Amino acid sequence: MIKNNRVTLRDIAEKTGYTVNTVSRALHHKPDISQKTVAYINAVADEMGYINDNIASSMRTGRTGTIAVILADITNPLFAILVRETEQLVSAYGYSVLILNTNEDRELERRAIKSALGKKVDGFILCPCPECHDNLEFLKKTGKPYILLGRRVGEHPSVILDDVKSGYLATSYLAEHYRRSRIVFINGLLSISCAADRLTGYRSALSDCGLPYREEMVFTIPTKAGTIGRVFDELAGRGIEYDAIFAFSDLFAYAAINLLSERGKKVPEDIPVVGIDHLRKRLFYMPPLDSVGAADTRMSEAAAELLMKAIRDGSPACTDRLCLDVKLFPV
Amino acid sequence: MIKNNRVTLRDIAEKTGYTVNTVSRALHHKPDISQKTVAYINAVADEMGYINDNIASSMRTGRTGTIAVILADITNPLFAILVRETEQLVSAYGYSVLILNTNEDRELERRAIKSALGKKVDGFILCPCPECHDNLEFLKKTGKPYILLGRRVGEHPSVILDDVKSGYLATSYLAEHYRRSRIVFINGLLSISCAADRLTGYRSALSDCGLPYREEMVFTIPTKAGTIGRVFDELAGRGIEYDAIFAFSDLFAYAAINLLSERGKKVPEDIPVVGIDHLRKRLFYMPPLDSVGAADTRMSEAAAELLMKAIRDGSPACTDRLCLDVKLFPV
Repeated sequence: MIKNNRVTLRDIAEKTGYTVNTVSRALHHKPDISQKTVAYINAVADEMGYINDNIASSMRTGRTGTIAVILADITNPLFAILVRETEQLVSAYGYSVLILNTNEDRELERRAIKSALGKKVDGFILCPCPECHDNLEFLKKTGKPYILLGRRVGEHPSVILDDVKSGYLATSYLAEHYRRSRIVFINGLLSISCAADRLTGYRSALSDCGLPYREEMVFTIPTKAGTIGRVFDELAGRGIEYDAIFAFSDLFAYAAINLLSERGKKVPEDIPVVGIDHLRKRLFYMPPLDSVGAADTRMSEAAAELLMKAIRDGSPACTDRLCLDVKLFPV
Repeated sequence: MIKNNRVTLRDIAEKTGYTVNTVSRALHHKPDISQKTVAYINAVADEMGYINDNIASSMRTGRTGTIAVILADITNPLFAILVRETEQLVSAYGYSVLILNTNEDRELERRAIKSALGKKVDGFILCPCPECHDNLEFLKKTGKPYILLGRRVGEHPSVILDDVKSGYLATSYLAEHYRRSRIVFINGLLSISCAADRLTGYRSALSDCGLPYREEMVFTIPTKAGTIGRVFDELAGRGIEYDAIFAFSDLFAYAAINLLSERGKKVPEDIPVVGIDHLRKRLFYMPPLDSVGAADTRMSEAAAELLMKAIRDGSPACTDRLCLDVKLFPV
């Protein structure tokens, strides 16, 4: 058993017969060493239990090769996809991802930021919680590069999808393709930019389709489990007639479909449902669902590229705000 | 903008009028300082942009407060749940989670281990890929504590669910509750312990229910997207009659339900389907599904506790192998 990482480049050089310089270049996969030699030296290094001492080198360069991704809940598949894409992209730069869940809570978000700072991450990708303002100001003061993902907040750098257009496309699809006029909107909390923007899109589509906006058709609920049942209780209790549902997210949409199904309603025949996020693009096991998603570019890759660039350039923060195009993906 | 973390305990002491010792104890939330003082000193420290220099302290203690979780794919909700539970548990110990995806690939798994070692993680939780043997031997040689999650491999320390019993419960539920006799088993690759064990349980249940084991009813497919359609093509092409499906995972089960539904079959009326993992326990939006899952203890919490203990004790590796009980959760 090898402990405390005592194998040195010199040990590997002695064992393989190559110079320390060649060994070092082979371990870093430099292109001027033959593939065969690279493979041989790396195999010997593995066999000897050699570990590149990243911490010592981070003390020299001031970088750890780690970024923090701070989000509400990794068990939300939308966030899991974002983390997966981010990890794939940054690993090409030799970076790893530290993952921290906030449960949409301001205090946990602050602790996550501090914990990641304590571990000297080189940058941050955040999907900020609803009451994030102070946390973002705190993060900004540290001078570390950061970028918000999926939700914009004031002037903070961010990569989002065009949420106004998402709301517009979903609503007008229900009105025009399914010919519905009483469209319930099960929205997220309006303190989240994407919920506010999707409401704007919903209203704008209703107006363009000649349909009235009715406040009692719009519900705002937290993005956590178990709250969506109350929407249907309220619709029933208040005797509100509806013939379609636009859901803030695919998760809300699937939960709504389960509840409609329990009530003997068929989707889409009785009540068509349109969601947002187009999870099926990545998750083969999700049931068919009309949904709006990114038209082309992946949001997380765009954010990760911007963050990597800011870290590489040593710039204090990203400054861009990107809004990516969306389209409707019918079943 | 504060850079390079130049705010010291002395700065905070001067600003607040407390001693450096009190400031230090307040920042570490020691119980002998009043709540009010802790809150005040932490607020001032935040305001000044103070960051606890975790790297410098890790050079002293030899610990980074980080563990690596290495798994196939975080977009698989089963893995996402495991990561979430792990992160919640280890964060209580001041630990963070570095997340690395292997895509079930041996080479990517090796790179993930090396990358995490380079970042001096204090321990590892792995859901090993099918051909992991050499990687685990490599990891063992480093002397870092590690534990396998959900899949056992030889003598390596692991926490798994009772997969033989899972296979038995799912199969006998189809045979007894639904009174079916021609049960297709859509299994994972047999090089994964849980697939091999579930097959043992499937055969044992068939035998106990007086049903014949027929090889053509068992399919083994990789846990990746898009392969499950071939099972149904093969069943149809070879004219194999079946009246129930036992799926290796809830994801396989949901994918099978989608495909059955496309073929005009109803679940469970025409073809009952039983899965494993009981995802609905944590994911409110998943459709109803009979499924086998952990009876009580959470697998990831058990693994994280063992790993934290090994790190705390400075023991070279966990040595336990835990097998947790399961039960069937009907819709």
